[in-house]
Amino acid sequence: MEIEVKFRVDFEDARRRIEKLGAEFVREETQEDVYFDVPLPNLLRVRKVENLGKAFLTYKLIEDPGRNEEFDEIEVEVSDFDDTVEILRRLGFEEDVVVRKRRLVYRLGRVTFELNDVEGLGGFLDLEVMGDDVKEAKKLIWETASRLGLGREDVEPRLYRELLRGVRGG
Amino acid sequence: MEIEVKFRVDFEDARRRIEKLGAEFVREETQEDVYFDVPLPNLLRVRKVENLGKAFLTYKLIEDPGRNEEFDEIEVEVSDFDDTVEILRRLGFEEDVVVRKRRLVYRLGRVTFELNDVEGLGGFLDLEVMGDDVKEAKKLIWETASRLGLGREDVEPRLYRELLRGVRGG
Repeated sequence: MEIEVKFRVDFEDARRRIEKLGAEFVREETQEDVYFDVPLPNLLRVRKVENLGKAFLTYKLIEDPGRNEEFDEIEVEVSDFDDTVEILRRLGFEEDVVVRKRRLVYRLGRVTFELNDVEGLGGFLDLEVMGDDVKEAKKLIWETASRLGLGREDVEPRLYRELLRGVRGG
Repeated sequence: MEIEVKFRVDFEDARRRIEKLGAEFVREETQEDVYFDVPLPNLLRVRKVENLGKAFLTYKLIEDPGRNEEFDEIEVEVSDFDDTVEILRRLGFEEDVVVRKRRLVYRLGRVTFELNDVEGLGGFLDLEVMGDDVKEAKKLIWETASRLGLGREDVEPRLYRELLRGVRGG
């Protein structure tokens, strides 16, 4: 299980705080995510990591819909982004939204930091822990959040997919 | 477009004839194909090539249903067979049949020879040409077939999926 909490942040400020915490820089990714219109709590995504020349097909089941912090995820790397999108189109899935972001990934112990600059939406930090003990994972996430100066008021429970639909709709 | 004609053959006899023709041996594959229950003329398959440690996700549209010689194919390599099957299951696709075969691949000019020993069904030879000119491709296939001593009466128009369902049903 993937447990994560998403915070609204200022990208450069959060970056400084994460590095000051001693988290190890893992990699930078330029991502283009195509989400398909499957009914919640299911998510279906094809991701292109442009700077690394990689692509991934991902299915997620949101275990706590609305809150969106607990995910059962299955992901495979695929050899071609466009062909994978086309296979899903042929199977009848419709493209919903496209999310483009620059991501810096850091790690400190069991916590992964995904610092995102999302096109059209701004800065977000996902604090993520893999594990089956949700309570313990959330405790770890919240300890880390408070060391970064982040609180409940900074949480963004909505999916990027939902936020972008809002932008587009409005 | 993938144009292919499938013949019923004796595996060892066909192998000798192909080699005598001067076709170049390309590779051997031990394949396990999971077909999902999508409506014809669509085909959805996840293939494991066990001896090469590879897996593929494939969508095919049969352009000439019933005859099954012309296919519009989109295929990507995937990093994990089981996870890809599981993603499709989660999306609501049901597994239809599993086809297991040993395949020897040969090539001569533009013609690919796929000599298959299919578990439960026996020997088959697919003669395949990639191209957009169906008429020209079929001419090439039939010239090659006749040099192997194969005629119209040896053609098996049914899909492995259909043949195996017959075996299972009967």
